This record gives sequence, structure tokens and C-alpha cells, in this order.
Amino acid sequence: MNMEAKIAGNVKHSDLEVGYDVPALPGMREDEIQTPCLILDLDALERNITKMGDYAKAHGMRHRAHGKMHKSVDVLRLQEKLGGAVGVCCQKVSEAEVFARGGIKDILVSNQVRDPAKIDRLARLPNYGSRVIVCVDDIANVADLSAAAAKHGTVLECFVEIDCGAGRCGVKTVGEVVAIAKAIAAAPHLKFTGIQAYQGAMQHIDGYEDRKAKLDAAIAQVKEAVAALEVAGLAPELVSGGGTGSYYFESGSGVYNELQCGSYAFMDADYGRILDRDGKRIDKGEWENALFILTSVMSHAKPDKAICDAGLKAQSIDSGLPFIYGRDDVKYVKCSDEHGVIDDPEGVLAVNDKLRLVPGHCDPTCNVHDWYVGVRNGVVETLWPVSARGKAY
Amino acid sequence: MNMEAKIAGNVKHSDLEVGYDVPALPGMREDEIQTPCLILDLDALERNITKMGDYAKAHGMRHRAHGKMHKSVDVLRLQEKLGGAVGVCCQKVSEAEVFARGGIKDILVSNQVRDPAKIDRLARLPNYGSRVIVCVDDIANVADLSAAAAKHGTVLECFVEIDCGAGRCGVKTVGEVVAIAKAIAAAPHLKFTGIQAYQGAMQHIDGYEDRKAKLDAAIAQVKEAVAALEVAGLAPELVSGGGTGSYYFESGSGVYNELQCGSYAFMDADYGRILDRDGKRIDKGEWENALFILTSVMSHAKPDKAICDAGLKAQSIDSGLPFIYGRDDVKYVKCSDEHGVIDDPEGVLAVNDKLRLVPGHCDPTCNVHDWYVGVRNGVVETLWPVSARGKAY
Repeated sequence: MNMEAKIAGNVKHSDLEVGYDVPALPGMREDEIQTPCLILDLDALERNITKMGDYAKAHGMRHRAHGKMHKSVDVLRLQEKLGGAVGVCCQKVSEAEVFARGGIKDILVSNQVRDPAKIDRLARLPNYGSRVIVCVDDIANVADLSAAAAKHGTVLECFVEIDCGAGRCGVKTVGEVVAIAKAIAAAPHLKFTGIQAYQGAMQHIDGYEDRKAKLDAAIAQVKEAVAALEVAGLAPELVSGGGTGSYYFESGSGVYNELQCGSYAFMDADYGRILDRDGKRIDKGEWENALFILTSVMSHAKPDKAICDAGLKAQSIDSGLPFIYGRDDVKYVKCSDEHGVIDDPEGVLAVNDKLRLVPGHCDPTCNVHDWYVGVRNGVVETLWPVSARGKAY
Repeated sequence: MNMEAKIAGNVKHSDLEVGYDVPALPGMREDEIQTPCLILDLDALERNITKMGDYAKAHGMRHRAHGKMHKSVDVLRLQEKLGGAVGVCCQKVSEAEVFARGGIKDILVSNQVRDPAKIDRLARLPNYGSRVIVCVDDIANVADLSAAAAKHGTVLECFVEIDCGAGRCGVKTVGEVVAIAKAIAAAPHLKFTGIQAYQGAMQHIDGYEDRKAKLDAAIAQVKEAVAALEVAGLAPELVSGGGTGSYYFESGSGVYNELQCGSYAFMDADYGRILDRDGKRIDKGEWENALFILTSVMSHAKPDKAICDAGLKAQSIDSGLPFIYGRDDVKYVKCSDEHGVIDDPEGVLAVNDKLRLVPGHCDPTCNVHDWYVGVRNGVVETLWPVSARGKAY
């Protein structure tokens, strides 16, 4: 199999061997899929993508879909086609390389790029025909970005990143925002395009009003920065942020004009638990579970415990264990390297039974798999490579 | 890049682009490596492998190195060459496929294989010239394995798996062991070869005497099973088990004759914490840290916090956060998807500083990376694919 073909999402199925290369091929029944692997309920995925696209359009927001979640050129294309996504955001230069080569035309690296070789790699990417935006939180970064873009004859657009609660990257004061924006605007081959202000820490707070309070504070901070930039003659073209737990707050803020949602498309157990305005779990109406780890029972040597084949190599449990979709009678209770232990008090499961697990956290779970198996009506319809899988550098 | 070449560990470096394909190329200095990525201290790795090999030899034990940890044909070859390893054990048919195609001649799938398509895949593997052993814990599995081996004209060897404390797969009673062994011995194209008895749950208990007590119980259970098998005329050729936290107990048991250690070669933070007989951490004498996540500081916008580029996509934190190797002045305190937060109270770190992280748990951490970057004396010497990465099915 050729890696370029894989990365372009242009896979010749005839080149692939089930088991060794891929967990399934189009046309197979769901019960024939080799497990554990990721499956996508294509109907649910399309409904989620369409719904977010319709929301963004109705609220006059650009939607830049977050590609760090799915790392897939094919899913991003679907977000462009059905959801009107304007492009992608991602977190790493290596991801941006995959999306640029995959033909995505508007790419934001919603992160700092500081290593000299990485800056050089980033500055080449506009030559693929893509607009490339990067975040800056240190004035010392500006000259390096400018020099690299000049070397490659390209333009890098820049967002100043504001830390509005995530406590990671980003500056905290209006003075810093304006100073960095001025430096960018003055630097050859750079363009000051706007503000990155993603409140990541609040996305997973359960209560709607609790999340709103955090976002209100972030919005106030962003408004102050925008006002100061306008005074300095540097009104931002884009003010970007917002996730699956907050996009309605940014959309109603009057200051943001671009969303960066990711997990809404697939859903996971941790996001599913948060509550909407009416106190209902967001996976019980707002969004559908479209991503599952398909797993098989592979031992039932003890009557009340079924052992399945999805362990730590098939998922990340940083945000908790997966739950078994559509089942109240059995429960995934323990995860080791290669196995999951399922409480089966009534002994209802049998060896080779297949179950759909909803992973605790979709992003790092997708990052351990090479393929999405797209399923509709119980049949494998498509196979998409996780094209930027492992692209962390 | 051709996947066959990658899987054979026979990578043409001229085909690879730094950044897009690989984090480094041979000849680069350690500070030029694109981060985050896995690096191996080749000197430490070779010393660990040699030491375990010498121990096994001195104690008359076969050492079947656990390939599920590193998932690398190249590391396994080093374990054969320097450590006298007799072959590999792994957990999945897809891993066995990689090791068989990679030329490893003695392969144990230390797990149950129940899915019909997987049984068929497994039964083909002896045609690569490898001995193939699989674990059985259910008499209903025997006929399926036998039929598949007959179909492909091969022989599958079988271990009966005893659950000696892990609480996952495996049978608990001597009666079940003997019954399954008899069924295997009677089945065409199968061979009853021995017992799988790996006490996984105790490997990470800190205290030496506490671990010994758990192993003493397991050894008693295995001895009882072996005695009953001998009475039945089915004396096992191999009794296999043992990990990095227990191999000295199995070696001194008088009943085990094969070890299955994995983590000793790389070490990690969770294993490093357990104590040897003298109460000393095993990463302070018994084994050396040979595996690191190389990470770079990529933001220091707050004076007391450095943000590095190794988050959940670069490691698994199921067994705790990584520690920063060789540093007491800074501490990795928080992990999100793409970032690590480092407490830097004195502000000693600068942007682009590189740090070596010792991952909490090596197995699932290796499983998110495509490459091992082998380093000696500060220079990249080799690049090995994680050839069975993502092979979970």
C-alpha cells in the first residue's frame, strides 16, 4: 500500500488485505469486521455535520472544523460538503501538512510553532495552495515566522492567542495582545488576521449555566482585546474559538465570528455527559453517537465476566472508561492493555458477540487507529484512513 | 514509502521526509529531532537486553520476549541477537502476522483467538516458516482451531491458559485444564504444548514480598495443574509466564521453563516505582530507562509554567503522568490532548528546550508512535518502525 494514496484518502481497496492491512472492506456485514476497530455510523455522522453547519449558517458564523479530533481528510471533506465548513484547524505542523496535501484550502494551526525546522515546514505549506494561519503568544516568535515565510516566498497569517481560561498557551493582557499584533503587522511576509481565544477548560463542565459563566468571562476578555486592537488600527478580521460545549455562547457573543468545533461530529462519553440548557445530556438530543469502538467477546471463562478485545491499545481512557452503547444489562468495568472486562451478571453475552463501545474521549482514541470503517444499515460502505494519525510533530 | 518495507523494518531513509514521514533521520543531532517522538537510548537498551538474556541463560530459562510492548521486529531481533530470546509472544493475530512476515520463527499469541476469520488468519501463519502457539481457555475453541489448521495444512500448537490472578482469560480449575489439554491432544492438526500462566495483576505491586506472595500462590496453582497433566500422560513441554516484576519468582519455581518479559527492555514510570528485594526502585539499578518521549517547550507565556508539545496524542496516561528524566527542578503536572503543562517555579526552562519524558506506561505509549529514533552519544543512529503499531485486530 502506498502511503501517499493512504494520506490522500484515495485508497485502492484491492490492495488491502483484511486483517493484516485493514479491519474490513466495503460490502462486508458489520459482524464480519475484524475487531477492535473504529466504526462510524454514517447516517448519524452526516446528521451531526449537517446540523452544526446549519447552526453556523443561521448564526452568521464561519465554521472551521477541528481536524485534530478526527485527523481525517475524508471527514473534513464531508464537513465542507454537508456542513459548509470553511476549512480546518489542527494542532500540529504535521497535521497541517496532511491537510494541505489533501487539498484543504484554509488551515489554522491553533497552536504555537517555535522549533526552527517546524517553522520552516509551516512556511512552505502555502505553496500547496492553502491559506495558512498560525497562533502566536510571544513576540520573539514573530521574526522567525517572518524570515521563514520570506525564504519560501509565502505569506503566513497570524492569530494572537489569548489565554481565556485554558491555562496553557496564550497571553493574558491586552497590552501583550496589541504589542504582538503590531509586531506581526509590521513583519514582512506575515499578516495579522485575528485572535485565537478557545476556552478549553470549560468545555467539559456538566452544567450549562456553569459553562456560560466561564464563557461570559472569556467573551469579556476578548471584547476588551478587540477594542484595544481597533484603537490601534488593527481590527481583527477573524475572532476564532468555541467547542462542542460552548459554540452557542461564542455565536451569540457579538465578537466571535468563527467556530472551531470538533467532537460534535463523533461524540464521546465524556462530552455526552454534559447538559444542555434544559438539563438533558447532549448525547440524548443535541448530538448523536456516530463513533464507536467495535469489540468482540473473546473469553467468557467466568460466568459473570465477559472479556472483550478492546483495551488500552484500542482507546484512551484519560477521560474515563467507555460505555456499551444501547445496553443496560452489561457494563465495561476495567481496561488493561489488550482486554476489557465486562460485568455480565446474568451471563447474557456469548463468545464472538460484538458490542459497540462509546469511547471516553474521542480525540486520543481516534489517534490509535489507522482506519475508520463507515457503516450504514449494518453493511460496511466505506473505509477512510485516519490520515494524520500519529502526526504529533 | 512502501508499507511492506516499513513492516519488514527495511526502511530506505532516502524515501523519507523529516517532519511529514519521520521525526528524524540518522546523523541528526538529538536537538534537531522533531518532537514529540519516541527515542531509544541504544546503549541502555542493549544493556537491558543483554542483562535479561544473561539472567535467563544462567537460570536455564527460555526467554520469549513480549513483543506487545514494543511492537517492533527490529527490537525483537536485537532481543534474539543480544539477549538470546527464543522468539516472541504477542497478543493479537495482527501482531503475529507482522512478526511472522518479519521472519520471527517462534511466535506465541498469549491470548484467545475466537473469531472465525481470525482463526483462519492464525492458521495460515505456520506457512511463513514460524512455529505458532495460541492460548485456549474454552473447550469449544478446540474444534475451530483444528479445522482451520487442517484447511491450511498447518499445525497450531496450543497452551491451556490458567487464570492465576489476572482475573481475565483462563480457567481456574485443574479439571478444566486437563479436559482442554486432552481435547487439544486429540484434535487433528493441533498439538498440546503447555501452559500459559501469567500473573499480570501483581506485576505492579510495589513491595517485593507482596509480589512474591502472589506468585507463590500462582506457582502452587501451576504445579497442581502440571501434576494432573502428568498423571493424564500430558506432561507439558513448556510452562510459560513471568513479567518484569516477577521473572525471578518463575525462574526459581522449578515448574516454569519459559519467561515472557517485555517492559524490562524499555522501562517506564509505573514499573520503575516497584521495589526490588533490597527495597530499591527497579529503575535505579535493576533496569535502565531506555525509552523516552522527547518533547520541546513550545510556550512559556506564564513565568512559572512551561508548555511542552507532548500530550495525550504522544502517550497513554492510564498508569500516571510521565516524569522528566534527570530533573528535579521542573515537573510535568498536567496532560491535555496536545500539551503538557510543566511546573517551572524558577523559570529555568526556555522555549525550544528539549526534555526527555519517561512515560507512565510504555506499552500503550509505544502504540501511538510510528517510529523509534535510536540515539547514541547525542546522535541519531537508527530509525525503527513500530512495525505492529495499531495492530489490535
